[in-house]
Amino acid sequence: MEFEIIAKDAMGRICRIETPHGRIETPTVLPVINPNIPFIPPDEMKNFGAQALITNAYIIYRTLAEEAVSKGVHRILRTDLPVMTDSGSYQLMVYGDVEVSNREILEFQKEIGSDFIIPLDIPTPPDADYETARKDLEITIEREREAKELNGISSLVLPIQGSTHMELRRESAKKAKEIGGDVYAIGAVVPLMDAYRFKDLVRIILEVRSVLRVEPVHLFGCGHPMVLAMAVALGCDLFDSAAYALYAKDDRYLTVYGTKKLSDLQYFPCNCPNCSKMDPEEVRELEKAEREIFLAEHNLYVTFSEIRTIKNAIKEGSLFELVEKRIRAHPNLISAWRQIKDYSPLLEDSDPRIKKRFLYCGIETLMRPAVKRHLESVKQLDFEKEVIVISTDLGVLADIYVRPVFGPVPAELLESYPAGHAEIPEAEFIEKEALEMAVENLRDFMRCLNDKKFVVHVSGRWKDFVKDLPGECEYVLH
Amino acid sequence: MEFEIIAKDAMGRICRIETPHGRIETPTVLPVINPNIPFIPPDEMKNFGAQALITNAYIIYRTLAEEAVSKGVHRILRTDLPVMTDSGSYQLMVYGDVEVSNREILEFQKEIGSDFIIPLDIPTPPDADYETARKDLEITIEREREAKELNGISSLVLPIQGSTHMELRRESAKKAKEIGGDVYAIGAVVPLMDAYRFKDLVRIILEVRSVLRVEPVHLFGCGHPMVLAMAVALGCDLFDSAAYALYAKDDRYLTVYGTKKLSDLQYFPCNCPNCSKMDPEEVRELEKAEREIFLAEHNLYVTFSEIRTIKNAIKEGSLFELVEKRIRAHPNLISAWRQIKDYSPLLEDSDPRIKKRFLYCGIETLMRPAVKRHLESVKQLDFEKEVIVISTDLGVLADIYVRPVFGPVPAELLESYPAGHAEIPEAEFIEKEALEMAVENLRDFMRCLNDKKFVVHVSGRWKDFVKDLPGECEYVLH
Repeated sequence: MEFEIIAKDAMGRICRIETPHGRIETPTVLPVINPNIPFIPPDEMKNFGAQALITNAYIIYRTLAEEAVSKGVHRILRTDLPVMTDSGSYQLMVYGDVEVSNREILEFQKEIGSDFIIPLDIPTPPDADYETARKDLEITIEREREAKELNGISSLVLPIQGSTHMELRRESAKKAKEIGGDVYAIGAVVPLMDAYRFKDLVRIILEVRSVLRVEPVHLFGCGHPMVLAMAVALGCDLFDSAAYALYAKDDRYLTVYGTKKLSDLQYFPCNCPNCSKMDPEEVRELEKAEREIFLAEHNLYVTFSEIRTIKNAIKEGSLFELVEKRIRAHPNLISAWRQIKDYSPLLEDSDPRIKKRFLYCGIETLMRPAVKRHLESVKQLDFEKEVIVISTDLGVLADIYVRPVFGPVPAELLESYPAGHAEIPEAEFIEKEALEMAVENLRDFMRCLNDKKFVVHVSGRWKDFVKDLPGECEYVLH
Repeated sequence: MEFEIIAKDAMGRICRIETPHGRIETPTVLPVINPNIPFIPPDEMKNFGAQALITNAYIIYRTLAEEAVSKGVHRILRTDLPVMTDSGSYQLMVYGDVEVSNREILEFQKEIGSDFIIPLDIPTPPDADYETARKDLEITIEREREAKELNGISSLVLPIQGSTHMELRRESAKKAKEIGGDVYAIGAVVPLMDAYRFKDLVRIILEVRSVLRVEPVHLFGCGHPMVLAMAVALGCDLFDSAAYALYAKDDRYLTVYGTKKLSDLQYFPCNCPNCSKMDPEEVRELEKAEREIFLAEHNLYVTFSEIRTIKNAIKEGSLFELVEKRIRAHPNLISAWRQIKDYSPLLEDSDPRIKKRFLYCGIETLMRPAVKRHLESVKQLDFEKEVIVISTDLGVLADIYVRPVFGPVPAELLESYPAGHAEIPEAEFIEKEALEMAVENLRDFMRCLNDKKFVVHVSGRWKDFVKDLPGECEYVLH
């Protein structure tokens, strides 16, 4: 499979994937199409921004096998978009059993001309005991090997399982990488999504990304616009989702800040062509079938405009800022995202060194690679003067200014990215952590200049933080 | 003027204002219409969600006076929406002079049938010296008195001036209230907006709201969707804006997170009917005139969908959550909003006591009235037991649980609003301030139970914070 990374930000990227049915530009969401109940016609999916579709090969196998083999899956769905086919593994999770073998369903996917085929992996749910998860994973790996042997021209998607056992997720990723797929798909995470267990979700993605550093990664079933920005920033490229339809049937309305019930809405908090035309009261009065289509279309509009928003953020280097806004949809997202602190080498490995802007959003801003890199680079600088003047106040003439978050910023770097370009709330209004990190960085910097003397001007709220500096310091309080 | 408050949240509200041309439901933005250059036709403004328009009586007076007097301003603009007319005060600010008297322009506004008339106030810019601002304000107040005497059936809008001198802003509000207007309009704040001096903007609104506690307040010229949620939450009801058109002419694109240049956009971070149809590259290739209309329409869509989003948040009691997300558009908004800490009685006065949810977003969440009210109410409770068991861990059987932000939560209130309903990041991931406030509240609570003994179970990160408790305490560390 041809795969090219064309832009990067945080751990996210914009990639191009070539398929026999054309190019996909990631990140993107593949709407789930039920081959027997085409709710929103697949040929309309392009209008919302869809670049590829996903359907269930097992359902086709059970209900339309002959027709599908003769016509191919694209004509069955009436689409010319690339199609990924799932294997029945979802049915395995829900019903515990499927009436097809791994080999059969793989051969079938090839026969119907799927662009992306998936073996019949075992989706071990979260919190499974270790032994069960390990045994399930063994079967999954065996089936992935079989898939690799059978595969022809389709792209091969290798699921990553292991329940909530991080060592098994890593093991699954390692084994899949050895086998060699085109796309790696993190599976059995929908129950985590549904229970707002975003901390586990993020941990799993980061563990998998620690093994699969550059490969295309799909996150099975997580297409809710509330998590897309975060998941992309963690390195997920592809998503699929039936939420647009399932939620619509249940009178629920997707937003980037969570799901709303239609019955609770007084005004549509949305801009889409549908929500610009009607108000919630009018939609509630529609016939069920019309209402479902209204909501499903809204759900698709909001999903793909979020994808555009994310891609634009990657292009402008503001994906961290976008995620730091989006996680405020729910406190569990805040906790979840702040785990990136434990994965800083991974982040530093992929995040671009130069961006246009740096806007502070909250204490998770301190975890951006730019902060650590700034400290490393100022620690390399040489200073000729014997006495270094340091000031927390930009109004005082100094060699080094102390800024929240970054700490020491040499006067000549006050116009440079990141610390100079950074837009940060004033010391009086910022979180304590941002001042503490600044002072910790200042101490670290001063320790590298152990032959110097320092004059330190300290003003306002900084007085509570600038203390215990190393070396010979004269303090001037303002 | 008939004016009714139908819903409240934070200091924001949804109000109904009756005019001779129908009802306005606030908060809303009045698009500025240039009577000679109707860029987006006024009769289309309803389609975007506009409920009223604003135009410049001085321009009409200078260029279309006779026609306007015979036809009326509504027929001149070809609209049946309520129309507010500005007086030439904007021209006074920009050009330093106008060729009309206060009395003349007021009489003219009455003659052309304006629904809201405005005297020729003096818009003193920010940072004017005190004496200038005071003298300007005297003239403004004099003209407001004249307006009050002259006014007939139109609603009277009384501007609030005073530059960045808070005592003058308060004085202006007091005098205007004495004179008695229908709407009070905070003026000369656009330069603050343009310079991102949101701290001054917020301070001015709060000072004015300290005097005008319930009256309808208009914020002159601040219709940028980036500030709307915050301004509404501070008590502003009406806005007007030419930004939709001015920015469009300059190839700029409004979003709730700031202004983008069309030339910088690779993907439209938006859902609106226009942005769902075309991509930035296609729009850049349009003829100038078509491009301007595309952008102006987008700008209107995003402005009015933000208004709907705000109104929906007021209805569901989540306006604090919305603002705490929106301020992350820019660090200056974060600093600005966090000034509400100094105005807690004002906030408590208007914020409803019962809401459905409480979601934590950041340290500004600590400033919501619900937090203080919770502490006050638990301090009223009686406890029969002699030994009170307190725990930071929900897994330990206790009388009182310690939660971030709120501090003490009696076991029987674990299911009640706000502390019980609150969704808060885990102690391990939350800002220090949220744990410090919890412990400070716990101490305050324990001091009210000075005849009790305490057993305090402390777990995890709480160990760094739960110390120096008052009274007789036995600590159990987990």
